[in-house]
Amino acid sequence: MFPMHSIKYFQKLFNEGLALEDFNKQPIELYNPISYTLSFGGKRMRPVLTLLACDLFNGKIEDALKPAIGIELFHNFTLLHDDIMDNAPIRRGKETVFKKWNQSTAILSGDTMFAMAYEYLMKTDIKISRRIFWIMNKTALEVCEGQQYDMNFENKKDVSLSEYLNMIRLKTAVLLAASLKIGAIIGGANEKDADYMYNFGINIGMLFQIKDDLLDTFGEEEKFGKKSGGDIVSNKKTYLFLKAIELAEGNDFKELISYFDGSDFDENEKISAVIEIYKRLKIDELANTEMDNYFNKAIENLNLISVVDENKKVLRSFAEKLMSRQK
Amino acid sequence: MFPMHSIKYFQKLFNEGLALEDFNKQPIELYNPISYTLSFGGKRMRPVLTLLACDLFNGKIEDALKPAIGIELFHNFTLLHDDIMDNAPIRRGKETVFKKWNQSTAILSGDTMFAMAYEYLMKTDIKISRRIFWIMNKTALEVCEGQQYDMNFENKKDVSLSEYLNMIRLKTAVLLAASLKIGAIIGGANEKDADYMYNFGINIGMLFQIKDDLLDTFGEEEKFGKKSGGDIVSNKKTYLFLKAIELAEGNDFKELISYFDGSDFDENEKISAVIEIYKRLKIDELANTEMDNYFNKAIENLNLISVVDENKKVLRSFAEKLMSRQK
Repeated sequence: MFPMHSIKYFQKLFNEGLALEDFNKQPIELYNPISYTLSFGGKRMRPVLTLLACDLFNGKIEDALKPAIGIELFHNFTLLHDDIMDNAPIRRGKETVFKKWNQSTAILSGDTMFAMAYEYLMKTDIKISRRIFWIMNKTALEVCEGQQYDMNFENKKDVSLSEYLNMIRLKTAVLLAASLKIGAIIGGANEKDADYMYNFGINIGMLFQIKDDLLDTFGEEEKFGKKSGGDIVSNKKTYLFLKAIELAEGNDFKELISYFDGSDFDENEKISAVIEIYKRLKIDELANTEMDNYFNKAIENLNLISVVDENKKVLRSFAEKLMSRQK
Repeated sequence: MFPMHSIKYFQKLFNEGLALEDFNKQPIELYNPISYTLSFGGKRMRPVLTLLACDLFNGKIEDALKPAIGIELFHNFTLLHDDIMDNAPIRRGKETVFKKWNQSTAILSGDTMFAMAYEYLMKTDIKISRRIFWIMNKTALEVCEGQQYDMNFENKKDVSLSEYLNMIRLKTAVLLAASLKIGAIIGGANEKDADYMYNFGINIGMLFQIKDDLLDTFGEEEKFGKKSGGDIVSNKKTYLFLKAIELAEGNDFKELISYFDGSDFDENEKISAVIEIYKRLKIDELANTEMDNYFNKAIENLNLISVVDENKKVLRSFAEKLMSRQK
């Protein structure tokens, strides 16, 4: 039995493969923002999952490299357009494309990355390219729908927790799931195992997003890298808030509603007060329980996959790291 | 020999097929702008060419219907995003999506239409779907590149006529060409005939755009439906202007440059003066000669296609109509 590769190994492999691609085509006004965006780095979580899933089934990792680049292109296309919609000036510590260039550039370079994503994803064996196409196509539509629900929720008063969970499934989880399923198919997985891989991805995607919500409110600032409580200040309807609204009664309920309806509160006072309510309702514990549930469902699916358990360790530890991360 | 169908017949067929599709999915905020856009109507030139090319090779027209819808979805996706970039409030007499809703909606509904375009284009026999995918993927990238060149030219002083021709090839002609080639492949055309069809499409695309430039300046207002001279007023670098700059000498050259550099001229005076120069340099005649050249190249390619000449009449008359149209 040979030892499985580490996440770091796959990150390095992906970044080396990406560096060999030439994105500096003509017209440069269109392609420069694309190389700029791809050079940001980041954890490369999605393409790493593609390589890892391919490796899990003993596939040739190099067969998964171009499709993994396609996944990363797709993810970055959504970031370019989301940043316009959210009017976000900074991403990964760098100016966003629409700020550094302009809005038209961010729209059009994003569109181009979307087309390139398909191009790279289809650089696969003819026997599997059609299956990969349909996974990606469904995923792309779902991600758009998720982003629309996310925007809707900003102005919607009565978002339910289940609506929120559906939104994060579409906006975040399905792409992680598709990254894994596509890698599995390239690696030679049968349909059943590819679906278990997909379900594993959905569940770690859900816990990833709930952890994000937790870290924003309860994370230690120096570790998470941004000021705690941002979601509270911006009245974002997170897992924590929606769970609290579900459970709160009397004064707690009234206070929560009043804090999330208005904007002329002292920021720190508001953060402290809301955290107080969350703690009283044990929202952090409940969120952790919810994450545990998703983790368990992820592991159940992982266990069902017909490869030796030894080889699953890296994915299991990946899921554990998502749970325990402090940033 | 059975009589070929008319353009009107294909338009009707396409619109009936489109009407059967349900685009009113959830979330409605995402899909309403899509049904709105598709309900605009218009000439449906691109999908009609797909159906027509399929029919030319005696293919089953219904096999080409979903891919034709894919082509129309792709075209409308580019319009949604172009309208944001051009800040255009009206299209086909209706409010554009970003004006009627907002910019985020136009970006995200456009992205969704792009994904749906691929979805519909791939609803074809497994034996040809991969070929269709690669035609569409290349075309999508080229259209993005064409739009970028078009935007570049607004601020570029020294655009050459050949740069302009390359831009309109990418922005306009390749999609007409791809519409025809995809239809031909669905109809069962061999690779050579499919390429002749593509080249036919490139050439009618080129003459279509040059005719547009001509109509904007020399068209009769009541027929063209918009005020003549709009391109001159907005200093647009059209075929006419770039040809004139190539040929003009002395005072004509200086006058042209000064008119296209500034904006504080009396509109009607400017239009008259520029048209005067164009006429002196016989730019309208030269544009017509250029169109004739493209027309002849289109017909040469049509002639090479291995189907009976009788069946080619409808495409020949389509090209003739593009040449002679007054709007």
